[in-house]
This record gives sequence, structure tokens and C-alpha cells, in this order.
Amino acid sequence: MTVSLTLYYAPGACSIASHIALQEAQIPFDVKSVALGAGEQRSPDFLALNPKGRIPLLITPFGPLTENPAILEYVASLAPEGQLAPVEDIAKLAQMREFNAFLSATVHVAHAHGPRGGRWAKTESALQDMKAQVADNMLSAFELIEQTLQSGPWVLGKDFSIADAYLYTFARWLEMDRVDTRGLKRVLPIELEWSSGQQFKPFWPPRVLPIAATAPAKPGLNNRH
Amino acid sequence: MTVSLTLYYAPGACSIASHIALQEAQIPFDVKSVALGAGEQRSPDFLALNPKGRIPLLITPFGPLTENPAILEYVASLAPEGQLAPVEDIAKLAQMREFNAFLSATVHVAHAHGPRGGRWAKTESALQDMKAQVADNMLSAFELIEQTLQSGPWVLGKDFSIADAYLYTFARWLEMDRVDTRGLKRVLPIELEWSSGQQFKPFWPPRVLPIAATAPAKPGLNNRH
Repeated sequence: MTVSLTLYYAPGACSIASHIALQEAQIPFDVKSVALGAGEQRSPDFLALNPKGRIPLLITPFGPLTENPAILEYVASLAPEGQLAPVEDIAKLAQMREFNAFLSATVHVAHAHGPRGGRWAKTESALQDMKAQVADNMLSAFELIEQTLQSGPWVLGKDFSIADAYLYTFARWLEMDRVDTRGLKRVLPIELEWSSGQQFKPFWPPRVLPIAATAPAKPGLNNRH
Repeated sequence: MTVSLTLYYAPGACSIASHIALQEAQIPFDVKSVALGAGEQRSPDFLALNPKGRIPLLITPFGPLTENPAILEYVASLAPEGQLAPVEDIAKLAQMREFNAFLSATVHVAHAHGPRGGRWAKTESALQDMKAQVADNMLSAFELIEQTLQSGPWVLGKDFSIADAYLYTFARWLEMDRVDTRGLKRVLPIELEWSSGQQFKPFWPPRVLPIAATAPAKPGLNNRH
């Protein structure tokens, strides 16, 4: 099945999750970069496609689709069956959605209180207070992911899924968020090392390993870029 | 298919979304009330089931499952096919997930900055600032829902889905959040009227109408409880 797809993304933003999924699905798609710094996401042209003024935005045959968890599952449904999501396993499918929902509503939100605190408060002192909590909140969230991860090496076990693409998205923000990652023995994404030359590019090395299954992470691994 | 299910919920909390879905699926399930005010969600017994310390929590044959979007889809998969989710329609399914993700990561989060601001800031002035933004943020989110809703009467059109159960969950918080709902002509849940005597009970009148399809909402409709 070939469908026409265009991903609106921004370098470094959470749209990389959907971007990775499209790459991994090995289906053709176009990309359009949105200049967030210049406010392009609030331009009339963009708002006509997505009134939320956010990326990722995927143009599909049935219209615009937003929200990473929804885009990820849609893309997985276009990939060869089971390649990006455990479509035949009701338990793993539920756990994948649980994981993605936690990333979307807790992890992403914890991070956003640093650069996007103005969504929820206006005073400068409140913005500073919120920024000051980001590292602890991100660490708590990632510690919980560590504790609840199953056998590995991937989020759902032996098979890669869209949950790994989504986890990578936030793991790569840990340094920016000044998180002490030394305790994150399993989840620390060793692909930060591998992808240091790839960041902010629209291409993604397939199947890099977002979870170090057994080897302890090297302290300072994510302090290089 | 009969499976053993137990929902941990709290009266008035977002667990009502999963609760409604279980009722609507017409499958047997048990409930356990969690006393949030007394901190039961942070008790060792509860944390052993859900280290997040949150509800809803659904005990399933494959273990504990959290996060409304994941529980809702799992429950829908147990219901007669298509009754709670458009499982055969890839476009509607994607739109349902997009809608649920927006409720989870934007609407719920906007609300939470009132009662749960301590998650993201510590100073009293920051908490007050965040509380002061809740009404505007909730209104903006619900206006966007209004603008992007399709034909109705339900979120996905002619058929009820788990998206309606989830929408109701937050619509019933609009009064608490001091939102001026008069502009919400379509989304304003007329079931707030119907359910005024049902609130905080573990039973739910099936198939009440969460979207007023055509009739303008009565101003003040949700000012009664």
C-alpha cells in the first residue's frame, strides 16, 4: 500500500518520533521543515492545516493528523504487519500505548515546563520556578521507566516498536534538561553516542539501540554534544 | 470473551473515563475506590501495583495497566467489535487517537495546573499564577475541540466511542475550572444536566449525549452542581 504522506517537522523537536517511525516503516514520505524560532507554526498557512500550531503534523490521505501517539500508530499500521507495533498481541499493544501515553502526557510535559512554561504561567518568577523543577521531574519519570522496563533490549522486549522511537525523542533531551543520567543504567540511550553526527538531520540510522540491555551506561555518555 | 478486570478509581477523578468504557463494553468488572484525599495512592500496597501513584489503574490478566488512553483502547478491544472504537476504519481510528492524546496531554494537563500545580513548581506565587491560567487554557482547548469537531453528534460522527467517554471526563470539570462555557455551543456536554444526580457514583447511564449536535447550549447549564 502506498499513500501520500507529508511530515511537517522541526529539527530537534518531538517530531523526530514520527520521523523515525516513517523511516522505519520504509514507506515513501515527504518532509517540510517548520521554522519554530521564526514562528512559522503560527502562520495562517500552518494554522489552516493544524490549528494547534504545533508539530508534528502529518498530512495523510484523510487529512491532517497531529499528536505523536496517533501519528506513530497510524504509521505503524502502514508498515509491514508487526514491524513497528505488536498488532497481534493485545497485552503488548496495551503496554505500548500505556508507555506512549506516559511519554506524551508526563515526560513531554515535564520537559516543556523548561522552554514552554509560558503555556501554564505568566510571571517571570513562576517560569523560573518551573524551569528549576524540570531536571528532577524528568529524572523521576525516567527512573520510573527504568524500574518498569521489561526484559529489553527494546521497550517491549525483543522487538523494536514505535515506543522506542518515542522514548529516544525524550532521552535525547536529558542533557538539555540537566538531568543526572548516571543512575539510568538501562534506559540511557546509547544511540546518543551513535547519532551525535546525525542530530537535527532528517535521516535516521535504522534500528539503533535505545536501551542498553545489560551493560551499565557510561557516566557522561550523553555529555558530548 | 470474559476476562478478570478490576478498576481502581476515585470519585470525580479522570478514572471515570475508563469506568464509563467498562460500563459501555458491557463486560463484568470489579471496582476498588482509592481515597486520594487520604493519600491511599501513595500507600505501599497501591504503589506496588502502580508506581506512578495515580488512578485509573486497571488490573488485567496480563497485569496492571495505567493511562486512560491505553485503558480505553484495551477495554474497547474487549467489547463487541466496533462498539467502542472504529476498529475497521483506519482514518477514524487515527482521529480517535489524536483526540484522546490531545485530551490526555493538553486538556488534562491544563486542568491539573489548578489542583496539582505542585508537580511543576514549588513557590506559592507560582502555584497561584498557574491556577490563574487554568480557565483560559481550558477554554482555548475546548474551543479548539469545538472548531475541529466533525459532524457529530459524537466525537467521531454518528457512532459513540471511547473518545466521548474521555471528553465527558474533562467537560464535567469546566465549571470547577471557572470556564465561561457559553461559547461552547457544540461540545458543552448536556449530560451534565442528566447526570447531576449520578455524579461520583460507580454507575453511568449508558449512551448519554456528550455533544449537543445542533441545539445551542443553554448558558449556565453547567452551573448546577
